Order: sequence, then structure tokens, then C-alpha cells
Amino acid sequence: MLFFRNDYSAGAHPAVLEALCRTNADLTTGYGLDPRCEAAAETIRRLCAAPEAAVHFFVGGTQVNKTAIGAFLRPWEAAIAASTGHICVHETGAVEQDGHKVLHLPAPDGKLTPDTIRAATEAHSSEHMVVPRLVYISNTTEVGTVYSLAELRALRAACDDLGLLLYCDGARLGSAIAAGDAGFPGYAACCDAFTVGGTKNGLLFGEALVIVNPALQPYFRNCMKQQGAVLAKGRLLGVQFEAVLKDNLYLSIAARENKLAQSLAVGLRALGVAFLVESPSNQIFPIFPDKVVAGLEREAAFEIQEKLPEDRTCIRFVTGWQSTEEDVEGLLAVVKRLLTQ
Amino acid sequence: MLFFRNDYSAGAHPAVLEALCRTNADLTTGYGLDPRCEAAAETIRRLCAAPEAAVHFFVGGTQVNKTAIGAFLRPWEAAIAASTGHICVHETGAVEQDGHKVLHLPAPDGKLTPDTIRAATEAHSSEHMVVPRLVYISNTTEVGTVYSLAELRALRAACDDLGLLLYCDGARLGSAIAAGDAGFPGYAACCDAFTVGGTKNGLLFGEALVIVNPALQPYFRNCMKQQGAVLAKGRLLGVQFEAVLKDNLYLSIAARENKLAQSLAVGLRALGVAFLVESPSNQIFPIFPDKVVAGLEREAAFEIQEKLPEDRTCIRFVTGWQSTEEDVEGLLAVVKRLLTQ
Amino acid sequence: MLFFRNDYSAGAHPAVLEALCRTNADLTTGYGLDPRCEAAAETIRRLCAAPEAAVHFFVGGTQVNKTAIGAFLRPWEAAIAASTGHICVHETGAVEQDGHKVLHLPAPDGKLTPDTIRAATEAHSSEHMVVPRLVYISNTTEVGTVYSLAELRALRAACDDLGLLLYCDGARLGSAIAAGDAGFPGYAACCDAFTVGGTKNGLLFGEALVIVNPALQPYFRNCMKQQGAVLAKGRLLGVQFEAVLKDNLYLSIAARENKLAQSLAVGLRALGVAFLVESPSNQIFPIFPDKVVAGLEREAAFEIQEKLPEDRTCIRFVTGWQSTEEDVEGLLAVVKRLLTQ
Amino acid sequence: MLFFRNDYSAGAHPAVLEALCRTNADLTTGYGLDPRCEAAAETIRRLCAAPEAAVHFFVGGTQVNKTAIGAFLRPWEAAIAASTGHICVHETGAVEQDGHKVLHLPAPDGKLTPDTIRAATEAHSSEHMVVPRLVYISNTTEVGTVYSLAELRALRAACDDLGLLLYCDGARLGSAIAAGDAGFPGYAACCDAFTVGGTKNGLLFGEALVIVNPALQPYFRNCMKQQGAVLAKGRLLGVQFEAVLKDNLYLSIAARENKLAQSLAVGLRALGVAFLVESPSNQIFPIFPDKVVAGLEREAAFEIQEKLPEDRTCIRFVTGWQSTEEDVEGLLAVVKRLLTQ
Repeated sequence: MLFFRNDYSAGAHPAVLEALCRTNADLTTGYGLDPRCEAAAETIRRLCAAPEAAVHFFVGGTQVNKTAIGAFLRPWEAAIAASTGHICVHETGAVEQDGHKVLHLPAPDGKLTPDTIRAATEAHSSEHMVVPRLVYISNTTEVGTVYSLAELRALRAACDDLGLLLYCDGARLGSAIAAGDAGFPGYAACCDAFTVGGTKNGLLFGEALVIVNPALQPYFRNCMKQQGAVLAKGRLLGVQFEAVLKDNLYLSIAARENKLAQSLAVGLRALGVAFLVESPSNQIFPIFPDKVVAGLEREAAFEIQEKLPEDRTCIRFVTGWQSTEEDVEGLLAVVKRLLTQ
Repeated sequence: MLFFRNDYSAGAHPAVLEALCRTNADLTTGYGLDPRCEAAAETIRRLCAAPEAAVHFFVGGTQVNKTAIGAFLRPWEAAIAASTGHICVHETGAVEQDGHKVLHLPAPDGKLTPDTIRAATEAHSSEHMVVPRLVYISNTTEVGTVYSLAELRALRAACDDLGLLLYCDGARLGSAIAAGDAGFPGYAACCDAFTVGGTKNGLLFGEALVIVNPALQPYFRNCMKQQGAVLAKGRLLGVQFEAVLKDNLYLSIAARENKLAQSLAVGLRALGVAFLVESPSNQIFPIFPDKVVAGLEREAAFEIQEKLPEDRTCIRFVTGWQSTEEDVEGLLAVVKRLLTQ
Repeated sequence: MLFFRNDYSAGAHPAVLEALCRTNADLTTGYGLDPRCEAAAETIRRLCAAPEAAVHFFVGGTQVNKTAIGAFLRPWEAAIAASTGHICVHETGAVEQDGHKVLHLPAPDGKLTPDTIRAATEAHSSEHMVVPRLVYISNTTEVGTVYSLAELRALRAACDDLGLLLYCDGARLGSAIAAGDAGFPGYAACCDAFTVGGTKNGLLFGEALVIVNPALQPYFRNCMKQQGAVLAKGRLLGVQFEAVLKDNLYLSIAARENKLAQSLAVGLRALGVAFLVESPSNQIFPIFPDKVVAGLEREAAFEIQEKLPEDRTCIRFVTGWQSTEEDVEGLLAVVKRLLTQ
Repeated sequence: MLFFRNDYSAGAHPAVLEALCRTNADLTTGYGLDPRCEAAAETIRRLCAAPEAAVHFFVGGTQVNKTAIGAFLRPWEAAIAASTGHICVHETGAVEQDGHKVLHLPAPDGKLTPDTIRAATEAHSSEHMVVPRLVYISNTTEVGTVYSLAELRALRAACDDLGLLLYCDGARLGSAIAAGDAGFPGYAACCDAFTVGGTKNGLLFGEALVIVNPALQPYFRNCMKQQGAVLAKGRLLGVQFEAVLKDNLYLSIAARENKLAQSLAVGLRALGVAFLVESPSNQIFPIFPDKVVAGLEREAAFEIQEKLPEDRTCIRFVTGWQSTEEDVEGLLAVVKRLLTQ
């Protein structure tokens, strides 16, 4: 079975696994208060050119989104997100469970703009309404698109103007950096807080939250504990991030994933396949006739994105650290066969 | 430095680490919907003689307590716990954060009794009060004591009588089973739900929640996701539990930990040391003059439990899977020297 | 100033005020456990032909929506509402504050249909999504439209089919009953719970919640107290509802309000005025050129509903128990003058 | 039946009722944004010598406690209260429902001290614990005792020292001011926020929240709406507070209530009756043999406070604005007869 279902189905990249094995017998204080976590945090601060940032390590993405947004907002405040945003639909109402409304904004390409943000804040001017306070973006987005540095800066300017916080869910930040023109320092400069996703970039698990805005830093570890988001053997997160941030491995993994996905996209386009949206990252969203999708399901693993009119279906192909050129070539051969049957 | 700080400072037991490495390249569906988790769940159901139980895997203990209690209770319902209970003090108000009061009951030895539970329910009879609904116990308790099977059965009878749920936090369930007379089936027979702790028993991380009561089972996975408690590469939990539940390793690790701690306790008693409480498990709570404690801190790692009158301090020694007889002998030698200086 | 701003700006209808004064010196048990509340509840049960319904009295509408929805839902469950629904926008995220997502569904005329409900439930089929569980409708709706009995029955059938609860916010139930073909028994037959609004129908304050579904009745008073929704001098609610439910006063007030508003609508249509939507109740939504609105603001009190293209604005006129034919005639004269200037 | 059950069983003081009737036909903007509320707020600011305070009007006491504490605290922060405090037991976990732990501190006379507060904050120093942030006191307390101005100042100093907020639940503030040596300005000087209770001091309903600390003022009305705590016909609260604050009526009512209760206490003491605690306010807590209590229940209305050893019971007598000297004399006669039977 050709595997393009997602980027979190294999275990850890060998370098990460090796680090875990090498340090397995170490004895360290728990809960992330250990030298490995401190070293990894320091590396992230250096990469981001953000020496005063607070860096916290989480096991998962919903966990970090929920904890950060819950900690940053006051009870009457709401988050703004693209309606495709992960927090809108696919986290079982985790943000609402902590008391905050999420305003769903239209965003055909998965990206918010200063105009949509401004319209949402202007529409919430009454005391009988929630107060929009935090802009949630994902980069890469849920449809594989990528914010450019100019777009991030424009969002930052709009947030400054409107008194909003900018939070970036970087579950696939590696892919976004590798595919875009904003590096770690760009995120640190534009966002009040953002995550550096590890789970989908070669770790067994792990998301690093970088809190740049000093006003959001105090007591954050209490919030983490309250949310059940502190890992007892916390150093496991530090060890993994140290390993993946060494020798540029983090971005190498991401760049390779992007390249394989884009190579697949090029091959599909050559076969006349259309796409939901142009996505330069490791997620692509081709559209096939339903009967081709049915055939594909027998030979490849992938997700259905959306049923479309005229018996067509948009599906998602994702590459992971374990994907190979052979996988891509194999999939293209299958698609070609199915399209010409 | 002699290490008796806790049982979650080393990495994984070698057998567990080997299993993780062996399966690292596998490609499985995420979120715990994979053959490894299903197999581990099936093993737990078999060990518990609870074929209809739902088994869910979590990364951490606060996470599972918070998710389970939040899912089981209605808004007006409260949890009852010994005032030493982990949810009372050391989870940063995680249960309250989800809207539920925790009633702290006195329990000098860390154990609730039918009488204390009954008194608490009788004291909450008005519509202007919360309704006690869930009894939270820990086994082993936070002071190392262990509920016997008879005690568990008495709690079950009281809960039946009072319309209460019985939930057991088994972060150290291995130690409790190894030190006590209740086995897995005893917990399944007495509790509506309980956890099988892995983090403190040889895993990198992992707590298995066993929901015996069918009324508490529906939609539980939605709750887990809402709480950010679903691990993307969920099979890591299944793989680890499979490894530790094989060949009785889970209880072997626990029995060995208990034995080392009890051997330490015997040695300390022989030196005339008193204890906070009699604890037959892998946590012991000796009392020393403050100046001995100061000396110990230079040669051993441990936690302070409580300052006591007359310049004495109760401290905690914990053994883990990595502890050795040499560690115990070394510590006894240090204590002997310090006491006789 | 001609007053058409809303239906909660005058005090109580004289009959209600008289009852409050007459009973002022009575001494009764607090919190709604008094003969006046019991008598009013019994009257409501009788009017609704729902002898087993639980009836609870609240001071305000947001309070009752929040308390009921919070009590009826489990943590993973969501409410479904028309995007114009009061709980969606104008209650400052009250439902989300208690942990529940509100799904906003499109509804141009303010009304949900079986099809929109069905589509929403079908779109939420994953464990990573909230579970739609309660359908929130308002009758009259926020744009003055009214569900017919056939529409209510169709919603009930859809809810039965989909396993959903049907909750009707009857802040203006009097107006809906007077304008529509469903009486109190129709609401009791179709809804799991609904409110009988008093604040906008002649009371100083007061909403009666009728819980028809017995599964939703237990411990509801604990929830009310927890939400701060129990009035100390609770009999004030019973006294007022007794007064307004006597001799059909409740529906007389509503019918008169509707008649005045419809008389105004007829007059405006005769002047060529268009409307946002056809609304047969005491709220109407005419559209005027902006300069007419500016002129109106100097002579009448009303709310702006929505800015429209081409320099037009939709505004809202509402009649209350204190409105008079002279008010209507006066407003028509002003509009006529402004339109012809 | 002699009525000493509570101080919220009669309707409104005649002067308050007259004001409601006089203004009944007025037409004002809703939600407390009206001249009556503004005038009442201004009067309170003047009485408190706190020209910058924000004043908000609520219908009930649990509602204001819940809304204020929920608005003032961040998720990881907790309230500190005497274990007798109203928020600890008698509000069905309303504060916890909004996510905050309430730390119950021992206080035999219902009063917190700097020492108990300090001990509680010192005991919560870990990241795994909630952060005590708000001190909740009631004046008069739930056992009728009264904080002196010196005690309030000492609490203020401790709060300043420890970084805590001081919140006073003044459900019976009138009685506390009339019985103590702190006036309105004393509360404004010592508290970050406090309430001026109306429900138990002659109003149909109404609690005024005075937020002195400017950091706690922004967006408070959004919070009120979110909690369902905004009264549609908001001016009813302004009208009532205006009436009761005129000509010193507020304190006259309270002083008269205190005087009647103290006259009753003197009479009971003369009959040899003991008390739970010395309380100089309108609530007194005599202790009787159970058989006397049984006799009393046939002739008087009151609450049971607590069962005591040796077949004795502590009960509560409360005077209200409607109580009379005849009531007191009548009750003393009954008690005398019962004690001598």
C-alpha cells in the first residue's frame, strides 16, 4: 500500500530515535525542568533571534492550541480563525470548552487577511458580543497553502492596529518555512506566540510553543499543568527537539517532504489532474473522478477532503519524513493507469 | 548522587524501548486507532476479566484524571477526595478548571473510608450545594499506603448505597497490586473506572484508562480530543503497553521497586528512623532531624514532604525501575553516617 | 419622542404592578419555593397540557438560555442555531463560556429547517468534532418571523430522527402564539424545553422555562443556583406570572402589540417602503434611505438592524404593551413627511 | 407565625415600592444604560468617596460573586475564603463552575485574618498548584460577625504585601456598616471591589458592585452579559437604589434590623440562652435544647444552623425591614414559655 495518508504515521526520524535511546538511562528532574529542555529552548530562541521568548514543550497540537488560547484570553474574549482552521472544526470544540467563542471567517485558500480580520472586529462592537482578541492562523494552512512574510507582516500590522494578538499554529511550520520566504525570525517578529511543530516533522511527538510577547509569559507553566499538558518525563521533548534542530535537520526533513509532494503535484498536473488550491507544501489536494478515487483506495492510503459536484472528489496526499521518490513514482503510475482505464 | 527523587526520571525499561525501536518504521493510522492499541486494550481487558470495558490510552496522569472526571460528571456534580489526593492540590485545579468542585476530606493515611464518604454526601443535601457524585481514590495513595481488596469492596458498597461513582487513580497501580491483595480483576470489579499507570512503571509515558461502567463509555473519545488528550502517533502507547504487559513485566517491575523501597525502610528502622505512615509500596516517608536532611541533600536526590515541629522534616524516598540494591545500600550507609555524626 | 426601540423599556403592565403591590407585605420562603410560584407553574402546566412538565422561573433571557443549554448538554455536545440566533451573537458567548460550541447555520428568514439541521449533523461525524445535540430556535425569531405549527412539528420529527433536543427561546412567545397557529400545547408537544417570555410581554422581568422532557428535569435547580439564576425573593416571579396568565392577559398583550406593529407595516407599505423580511409579529424591519433614517432619529427611538448597499439602512420598529394607535399614526406621519421631503 | 427566617422574605420597603410605581410608565434604554442607574451609581461613588469607581447593578448575590470573581481571576488563579464563606458551600460551586478553585480556610468566627491568608499563599508555591489571588470576605459574615475597620485595613495591608485582591461580599453591608466602625469610604479604601447589598436591605432585589481598582474595570459589562447578569429593564435597579440611598434610608433600615436582633439577643441571654458566636448584626445564633427547637418550630419560622452534641441545636434568627418590636417580644415570650415547660 502506497502511503500518503498523513505525516504522523511513522515513528521518529532515525536521528531522533537515536537520541532518545542514547539518553534513556539519564536521570533528570521531571516536568521539563531539565538541561535537555533548557538547551532545546535556548536553541529555539537563538534560531528565532528572540532571546527573551519563553519556550514551552507540549506533546500535541490540540493541547498546545487549547492551553495557549485559554491562557491568553480573558473570559469575554474570542479567537478569530479561518473557517478551515484546525481549532474551528477538528479539535472537538477544545477552545470553546475553555469558555471562548471561535469566530469562523471565510477564507477560500485557508488564509486570513487584514480585511477579514478588520471586518470581524468591526462587527463585534457591542457589550452584548464577545470581544475578538486573538487571531489564529495556521502555517502551513489546513489546505496546504503558505503565508508569505509580507502576508504575516500585514497581519501583524492589522493586529497592532486593532489591538489583537497573533498566534500561529505551526504544526507544519517546517514545511511552511521550507516552502515560503519567512524564517524562524520572521515568525518571532510577527507573532505574539507560535508553535514549532515536531510531530509532523520527524519527532515521536512534540510541539514547541514560543511566547514572544512578554505579557503572555507569566504563570504559563501553571496553565500547562492545569490543562494536563506537562509531560512527567519532560526531557523526552527536549531530547527530541535538540536532535531535530541540530545540523538543520528540521528544515531538511521539511524541504524533502515538500519536494516529494511537489514532484507528485507536477506529475499529476502532467496527467491533467486539477487541484482544490495551489499548495506549495507537503500537502496537496488533487481532484479525481469518484471512480478513480475508488480505484486509488485499493492501492494507496490517503484522506478524503471533500465530495464535489459531478461525481468528483477532492482528496489529500501528504508526504512524511519516511516518504520516498519510489512512493511518488509508484503513485503516479497508479493514477496514470486508473485515469486511462 | 543517589537517586530516590521519584519513579519517572529515567527513560523507559529496556524491553519497552526495544519495542518502540522495533516498530518505529511501521505506518499506522493515528490517534490510537491502530492494531497495537487494540491489542494492548484487549490484553488489559483480559487481565481485568472485564471483556466489555472500554480502554483508552493517555500520555499523562493529570490529563487522564481531568478528562475522565470532566466527562463523567454533570455541571452540578462534585468529586470527593482525600485532602492528600493528587487532584486536590497538585494538579493546579485541573478538575475545577472544567467546572467541578473537589471536596477535600480528612484522611490521615491518605485513604477514604465509607464513613467519610457518607458524611460528605450527607452534608451536601441542599439545592444550593454541589452534589457529590464521584469518589476519587489513588492506589497506591500519595503517602504510599495501599487499599486492600476488602477496603475497595467496602468503598464500592458505600458508593452503590449512595449513588456514587468510584474512580481509582492508578498512577502507581503496579505498586499497589504488587504490595496489596487486589489484582487487576479486583479493581475492575470495584471501580467504575480506574487507570493503569505506565509512566511510573517503566514506560516513557502512558496511562491506560479502564472504563468498566458502560454508562460512562459513549463519546469518550470526543472528550479526549476536546481535552487535547489524543496522541497523534497513538500507537506509541499501544506499543509500550503491549511490551510492559507481556510476560508479567508490569508487575515484576513494580514488585522489584516495592522490594527495594521496603528493604530501605527496614534498614532505616534498624537505624531508629521513624516514618510518617506505614507504607508498603515504593514510596516511603522517613522523618529526620533537619540537619540530617541538609546533609542528605548533598548526597541524594529526594523530595521534602513536610516540615515538622522540633526541627524535623519528613522526606520521601521513591524507587524506580532503574533503582538497584547498591542504591539502597549506599543510601543506608549515608544515613547511618549522618545520624551518627 | 415616538418610542419603537423595543418591548422592554416600560415597566410592568398595570395588572402586574398591582399584583406586586398587593402582595408586597407577604412573607414567603425564598428562592421560588413559595405558593405563588407553585400556582404560576401549575397554570403553565395546565395551559400547556403538560402535567408532568417542570417549570422554573428566571429573571432574564440570556440567563435561562445559558442555564438550560449548559444543563442539558454534555461537554462534547454542541448547540445548533440559525446564524441570526440570539445565542450566536448577542449573548457575549454565554453558551461557549459554559464550554459548548454553537454551530451557526444559514437561515435567511431566521428559521431553521429539517434540512439545515440534518446537514449540520451529517457534517459532524468525526470523533474530532463536537456532537450536535440541541437545536436552538427562537419564536418569534430575531427577525420577527414565526414558525408555524407544521414547521415546529417538522423540526420535532427531524430531531427525533437525529437524536437531537429541541429548545425554543420564547422571549417573545406571546407574540409568536398570537401571530401563529401553534398554541402553548403545540410548544409542549414539539419541544423538549421552551421558555414563556414575560419581560417583553408586560412583566417587570421574568421568563418561565418549561422542561417537558423528563430526562432533563433532575437537579435543574442546582444548576440554576450554580449559574446565579435563583432569585432570592423568588415569589416576585410567581406573582407576576400569575397576574399575566390570568384572564388571557398574556396573549391579549401580545395580540395588541402584533396588531399595532402590523398596522404600522401596512401603513409603511402603502408609502412604498420595502422590508427585510415579512414578519407578522411585533417586530418589523423596514428599509429606508439613509437620509430618512437620519431624519427619523430626531423624532423616534428605534434600533439600526443593518447597513445596506446603495445608502439604505434596515431599521427595526418594535411595539410594546405601552404602545398606542397614536404612536403608530404619529410615526407614519413622520415617515410620510420624511419620504416626501 | 413569628417570622425570623431571613431578611429576604418580604417584598420591598414602602419607599422603594413607591419609587417603582412612580416610574413604571417611564421609557428608558435597557440594560442599565439609563439615567436612573447612572444617578444611583453616582450616589454610591459619592457615598464611598470613590469618584473613579465603576458601579454595576446586579439582581442577586450569587450572580455578582460569580461574575466578579470569574472576571477578576485568570484561569490558574484561586479564591481564598473562610470555610463558612457563602461561595464555599452555598452557591452550588458557582465559582468552580467558572474554572476557579476556592481554598477553604478555617475561621471559627467567620473571619479571615492576615495570618490565615498568608499561610494559604505560602502553601501554594508550586507550579503544580493554583495561585491564590483573590481574598473573599463577607461583611457581615455568614455567622453574623462584623469586620472592624482595623481588621479590614489589616487585610488590605496583607493583600498588598502578598499581591492579592480583596473582595467583600456585602450582601448584608448595611448591617455591617450599622454595626461596625467602617463606613462606605472604608470599604472603598480597603477593597478592590465590594458589593452593596440591597435584596436583604429593603429592595425587591439588587446588589451594587463597586469596582474600585481600575485594572478590574474594563470590559466588565461584557462579562455581565456573558453571565446572563444584565437585567433587560435595568433601570429597576437604579430606581430602587436611588430610593433606598435617599435620606440615609439604607442605613436606617439596617440599624433598625440590628437593633431588633440585638434586643432579641439581650432578651435571650437574660433567659440563660447561649450563642454560637457573638454577633452584633441582624443575624443571631442561639443554642437551644432540641426539644425547645421542636416547640419553637410550631410558633416561629427560622433556620437550623447546626446540630450540636448533647441534644442541642444552634438556630438562626434574622430580622428584616418588616420586623417589629412586637415580633421580638412575641418570640421572647414563646422562648421563655418553652424553656420553663
